[in-house]
Amino acid sequence: METTLGTIFLSELLGTATLILLGVGVVANTLLPKTKGHGTGWLLINWGWGLGVFAGVLVAFKSGAHLNPAVTIGILASGASEYVPGIPTNFAATAIYMVAQVLGAMIGAVLAWMTYKKHYDEDCDPSLKLGTFATAPEIRNPLWNTVSEIIGTFVLVFVVLSIAPAGEASGLAKVDLGWLGALGVGLLVLSIGASLGGPTGYAINPARDLGPRIVHQLLPIPGKRDSDWGYSWVPIVGPMIGGVIAGLVAPIVF
Amino acid sequence: METTLGTIFLSELLGTATLILLGVGVVANTLLPKTKGHGTGWLLINWGWGLGVFAGVLVAFKSGAHLNPAVTIGILASGASEYVPGIPTNFAATAIYMVAQVLGAMIGAVLAWMTYKKHYDEDCDPSLKLGTFATAPEIRNPLWNTVSEIIGTFVLVFVVLSIAPAGEASGLAKVDLGWLGALGVGLLVLSIGASLGGPTGYAINPARDLGPRIVHQLLPIPGKRDSDWGYSWVPIVGPMIGGVIAGLVAPIVF
Amino acid sequence: METTLGTIFLSELLGTATLILLGVGVVANTLLPKTKGHGTGWLLINWGWGLGVFAGVLVAFKSGAHLNPAVTIGILASGASEYVPGIPTNFAATAIYMVAQVLGAMIGAVLAWMTYKKHYDEDCDPSLKLGTFATAPEIRNPLWNTVSEIIGTFVLVFVVLSIAPAGEASGLAKVDLGWLGALGVGLLVLSIGASLGGPTGYAINPARDLGPRIVHQLLPIPGKRDSDWGYSWVPIVGPMIGGVIAGLVAPIVF
Amino acid sequence: METTLGTIFLSELLGTATLILLGVGVVANTLLPKTKGHGTGWLLINWGWGLGVFAGVLVAFKSGAHLNPAVTIGILASGASEYVPGIPTNFAATAIYMVAQVLGAMIGAVLAWMTYKKHYDEDCDPSLKLGTFATAPEIRNPLWNTVSEIIGTFVLVFVVLSIAPAGEASGLAKVDLGWLGALGVGLLVLSIGASLGGPTGYAINPARDLGPRIVHQLLPIPGKRDSDWGYSWVPIVGPMIGGVIAGLVAPIVF
Repeated sequence: METTLGTIFLSELLGTATLILLGVGVVANTLLPKTKGHGTGWLLINWGWGLGVFAGVLVAFKSGAHLNPAVTIGILASGASEYVPGIPTNFAATAIYMVAQVLGAMIGAVLAWMTYKKHYDEDCDPSLKLGTFATAPEIRNPLWNTVSEIIGTFVLVFVVLSIAPAGEASGLAKVDLGWLGALGVGLLVLSIGASLGGPTGYAINPARDLGPRIVHQLLPIPGKRDSDWGYSWVPIVGPMIGGVIAGLVAPIVF
Repeated sequence: METTLGTIFLSELLGTATLILLGVGVVANTLLPKTKGHGTGWLLINWGWGLGVFAGVLVAFKSGAHLNPAVTIGILASGASEYVPGIPTNFAATAIYMVAQVLGAMIGAVLAWMTYKKHYDEDCDPSLKLGTFATAPEIRNPLWNTVSEIIGTFVLVFVVLSIAPAGEASGLAKVDLGWLGALGVGLLVLSIGASLGGPTGYAINPARDLGPRIVHQLLPIPGKRDSDWGYSWVPIVGPMIGGVIAGLVAPIVF
Repeated sequence: METTLGTIFLSELLGTATLILLGVGVVANTLLPKTKGHGTGWLLINWGWGLGVFAGVLVAFKSGAHLNPAVTIGILASGASEYVPGIPTNFAATAIYMVAQVLGAMIGAVLAWMTYKKHYDEDCDPSLKLGTFATAPEIRNPLWNTVSEIIGTFVLVFVVLSIAPAGEASGLAKVDLGWLGALGVGLLVLSIGASLGGPTGYAINPARDLGPRIVHQLLPIPGKRDSDWGYSWVPIVGPMIGGVIAGLVAPIVF
Repeated sequence: METTLGTIFLSELLGTATLILLGVGVVANTLLPKTKGHGTGWLLINWGWGLGVFAGVLVAFKSGAHLNPAVTIGILASGASEYVPGIPTNFAATAIYMVAQVLGAMIGAVLAWMTYKKHYDEDCDPSLKLGTFATAPEIRNPLWNTVSEIIGTFVLVFVVLSIAPAGEASGLAKVDLGWLGALGVGLLVLSIGASLGGPTGYAINPARDLGPRIVHQLLPIPGKRDSDWGYSWVPIVGPMIGGVIAGLVAPIVF
């Protein structure tokens, strides 16, 4: 079957929607009032996002499952000639990946809001409601928050680019490990969240932050606060820088 | 070996019994008095149900391990011609899958009650005893509770249908990953529980809720409350709708 | 390489020692005073035992990694003619498996005590010190405690016996999944602990309970209590019954 | 592609840096003030280190991913003739592995400090700041602390050396399981942390402790304490002894 730009668009749209539905969902489950998972804590959030990536990557296998503009630009920076067989790494394809990711993230955030509708209608600290959609730093400092996002995203893209060549140099036949690759990426995101997510809440993906933040702005959520646009450039700029650096370094190393 | 409807019945019966034994068990371990796991919380419950699916799918490999009427009807809606080789997707087979699932769920719930017998005999809030068998929403609202169940089940069936075609487009030989597929489905259910289970406790499976609810009605549990039949249609209708939608959408996408 | 009874003995001895070192270790880390993991809770214990099985199975691959008399007797009951290629399921082999398992469990318990030596020397409730070695029910009732152990062990042995025949009926080539099988068994034990371990602490293995209980009796631990021999038959009899039933049922189903 | 000592150096440097960035990061997330993961506890730390190993092993696949002088010396003690194809187990190669590991650990610790910069600048107990970099025992006793480290490292190296020969003796074709091997090692380290890390915080790796301790000494961290050099020999000597014993025993058993 031939891969087309339309396939790419649909695949990234649905994959990113799945990721964000599960990711925004786990934060809503932890932060909003009267949920089953209320107050469970950071490890639940890490599992939710990690397995959200797992599910999203499964859904988007036809487009190589970037689900993240920082991954797309990292692959571009690595000098690869094609994103997936038949889709060259040119401006049009790159734009389609990224637009689909942001739109998919918006769809996922709306679905998560629908899932937790009656909990969003409850009274609670407006920053918690925003916190289910968009990231926010614990100590606000644009420079160091950006550094945190750069390092986290570098690890994501750099290690992802090591998965394909990895192997045991065993002399044994390589085989297609199918859906297991999605698990590897999901566990990597779990790792980054547990280890590097403490300062900023690990956007490490511009679409993950921007899409839901737009949705927070638009949705009629009772008692919501402003969408904190003053911070919104950090989870875009940091991840893009981290992704590009990883894309430049990886081909030298692997 | 030829697959027969009798094989399907036994396989789904035992697989769903295993799933529900482990699933009802983990909630009993968390909610009932004087257990080792008392009060451990949501992440334990998510692991218990996720790995319950893992074990149940292993047991039911001969029937394709639906364990869930929403999966069965989703596969039917997807237009597949056979459930497993030799078993066409007709009314008789569909009915046998679903009857076996509900009966299996009842068997599993009885076994879980036997495992925790002396803890069910202790005094505690009757809603906790019911909560080990059947789901209940944290904020009772039939419409939005149904929406939560539709979305959760859609993710389950949609992503499950992506697992088989997924792969790395690597040009490498595909191989049978054996029992690992059961792990993939189990982790997906863990994901849905962590992320989308907050409002209703994620039935996402009519048999999972109906079978144990019937058992709660029948068993001689001291100090039990009514079985909350007023809510019981939500975890049936929501999952069936979500499964059908996923079954209709998946063939278009994958 | 030919498998001999000597290989079997060494393999089961070291594998069970690894399992029990890690299993007793995680309970010590949770219950004893002044440890890093003090009070972490049930999910940590479940992971510790589950991955202890993972590590122990890896170590004991040459003997098929029973590590548990209930597994050995379950395989015997299933009518298999050999434990591993070259080792028939006769009385001598069965005895060697079981003796090695109990001795290995004793070695593992001593090593765990050495790891936590200074913490065992601290003052604390003597039942906590015993609780790191041997299981104890939360509600003491020999009949129902035995039922809990029968059901838990049945699930263990029954599902383990489903792993080898499991697969996706995909028509794809089956391959040796190597060390991954150890992970499957480990996750199954994690599942049983989370879901069915609440009443008795899931011995589900006579060697796991008896070996460390003997060691508790023998070691010079300050302020220790008696070794609760009155309960010690439950985690032997229950698992043996559960293993035999599973061994009889599995060949009919799979 | 030919493997050279320069490849080994770069591979171990980057792999160990990844491991330590993620490992120091998860402790910082747990212990430092105002982080998202503050106070989450031991299981988060175990997952962070376990998946840090997972990511580090992926990055360092070209050098066999030792990331740990105790692993390097254990392989040397096992009598292997090559570390990876083309790199003999001689003094030069051994030294290059170990120097790269310590330097990589230093780089990783600096990156973790950069990620959590504003949190290291906050007021808190100076021992918590040191605790993010270097291990410290809960009960200081050089002999028994060393015993804990010996046993933990023995399990690490012994079980790692069992992974390659493990298999189901199934008669099926062995295949290259690719990146999955990294997951196996990561889960093993998670297991050791959960079960054996209670007394000393499981260095089980001289580079993991020494590299970050040096960095703690050098970095301008406000309100930092001394770097506890009096204890620093324990997490070097213990792991080296444990690794050598495992390297000597493994070839006899596997």
